Amino acid sequence: MRVSFEELHQTLRRALLKVGFEHGRAELCARLFAETDRDGVHTHGLRRFPRFLEMIEKGIVDVSARPARVGAHGALERWDGRSGAGNLNAYESMERALELSRQHGLGCVALRNTNHWMRGGSYGWQAAEAGALAFCWTNTLPNLPPWGSARPLLGNNPLVIAVPRPAGHVVLDMAMSQFSYGALAAYRARGERLPVAGGFDAEGRLTQDPAAVEESGRPLPVGFWKGSGLALLLDMTAALLSAGLATHQIPTDPLKETRLSQVFIAFDLNTLGGTESRIADDIVESLRAGGGETVRYPGERTLKIRRENLEKGIPVEAAMWEQLRGFSSM
Amino acid sequence: MRVSFEELHQTLRRALLKVGFEHGRAELCARLFAETDRDGVHTHGLRRFPRFLEMIEKGIVDVSARPARVGAHGALERWDGRSGAGNLNAYESMERALELSRQHGLGCVALRNTNHWMRGGSYGWQAAEAGALAFCWTNTLPNLPPWGSARPLLGNNPLVIAVPRPAGHVVLDMAMSQFSYGALAAYRARGERLPVAGGFDAEGRLTQDPAAVEESGRPLPVGFWKGSGLALLLDMTAALLSAGLATHQIPTDPLKETRLSQVFIAFDLNTLGGTESRIADDIVESLRAGGGETVRYPGERTLKIRRENLEKGIPVEAAMWEQLRGFSSM
Repeated sequence: MRVSFEELHQTLRRALLKVGFEHGRAELCARLFAETDRDGVHTHGLRRFPRFLEMIEKGIVDVSARPARVGAHGALERWDGRSGAGNLNAYESMERALELSRQHGLGCVALRNTNHWMRGGSYGWQAAEAGALAFCWTNTLPNLPPWGSARPLLGNNPLVIAVPRPAGHVVLDMAMSQFSYGALAAYRARGERLPVAGGFDAEGRLTQDPAAVEESGRPLPVGFWKGSGLALLLDMTAALLSAGLATHQIPTDPLKETRLSQVFIAFDLNTLGGTESRIADDIVESLRAGGGETVRYPGERTLKIRRENLEKGIPVEAAMWEQLRGFSSM
Repeated sequence: MRVSFEELHQTLRRALLKVGFEHGRAELCARLFAETDRDGVHTHGLRRFPRFLEMIEKGIVDVSARPARVGAHGALERWDGRSGAGNLNAYESMERALELSRQHGLGCVALRNTNHWMRGGSYGWQAAEAGALAFCWTNTLPNLPPWGSARPLLGNNPLVIAVPRPAGHVVLDMAMSQFSYGALAAYRARGERLPVAGGFDAEGRLTQDPAAVEESGRPLPVGFWKGSGLALLLDMTAALLSAGLATHQIPTDPLKETRLSQVFIAFDLNTLGGTESRIADDIVESLRAGGGETVRYPGERTLKIRRENLEKGIPVEAAMWEQLRGFSSM
């Protein structure tokens, strides 16, 4: 079934007011969840909301905590998320990085003790809509074996890169595993094989069988040894810049995944005189010209889905929607 | 055969003096080449040197050009490489980013109109040795088909991330193709198959045959669609920040690969009070503890090779070494 963006947003907002968020924060937190479904990333929208409420109930996410600045030097700041809502902390950190970038050309906020930021791409879109170029990344609980090991010692540490472009922002949102566990489950549910090897089976052979990867707990890093190295460096840089926890210190139980470390960097292209947005257009155009309709830029599909969902309504799972409506009108 | 680091460095230095570099610049440029062989990255050391001289002769690399600042706002600067030697321009840009980071917490130099930086890792080691955390990346000529196309519309755009660590810096230096053309040639020469799929053959099937990938010109991006997106964003951000050329504007002939765009970002960890170098040690230790001897961190093998080569001498190809000696003593 489909519901309007407004209805989804307001229903989520009411649920958040119920669990104790103050008005403005409930509004923003609900918007970030609703926009995630609007953009087709259902794994981190409404479907993720019950777990978010559960973590609030368990005291892992503190609805009233606001991030606090704990260190600052020019364009580089360190903030403590104080176990607040992960999406609000991330949004506020990117806002601060954007402010710093207007002052210093670029700005960086390193955030520690935060919670899961839900859809990482949200903060890329946020920056691009403000006209800025941005990078952000997070560490996660250990869920990815490094190259050379069968044990999940690395996080899949999503990396987001955003480039503003009037004709359609370019926003890359990539985790360091070739397929997320959510994606593996979706392929399995559809009875499909993975399009490329997604991990090792229990015997240590590369496989395209999603269930075999879920069973072995050995998803592949993107690019094998290369993504393994990149995941490690993203964790290390996030923990060092924020003086926060690294993946190996975070509980492996997803319901206890907390005290994450994140980095937000924004660049104000206007401070160097002119946005040169033609450059991004020309690059997208060069792909079109060279590769035809088959090449997509990161974010292109999101914009298509967004338009469609705003027109037809946001797809929601009926049972989950009824549950949310029930909770928010109690 | 093996030669001492000093002999390699001085012989390269004399050759560079002959083609017109001034003393200090010949010294540094030679050192960067010699250190590349010292660290085992022979594709971009002595073996690459004849092509470097050829590009000087053809006027593509200007031995006397120094980079010039063309824009600045706080911690963000834009420089023009003026077709100078790529490794000197990159070194100078990282030095400037380090300076900016000491002043502003972090600093970024976006460099345009530069030449091939040879080994990207050099600038990561440079930053780590200065105690800084750093990111840098470059675009390249078009040599990588984006996901969904058979034509090389993207560059393999190497990305370098460096974390300083007294016990051994962690330096990731990864191109966005799963295997470089140099690596493909090396596997072919040894008569070996690739350990994982490295590209498509002429019929569009994934293959582990290095010759088939060389023939089709379709190497794989790391992580298939994911590395394709990352390569695109690295090109876009480099071109936008530097207001320089993007991959699609760079000639496909390696002997004419010039006017590249690069980004150098350094973070001064000391400005936020304490380097917390224990964090990086703990992360490396957690891999050791969890995965045994089979997991390596990026840069670990480099340090091993470096020690060995400094002790036994740097491996050089005899014919190439004689040619260099002849040229430098003419």
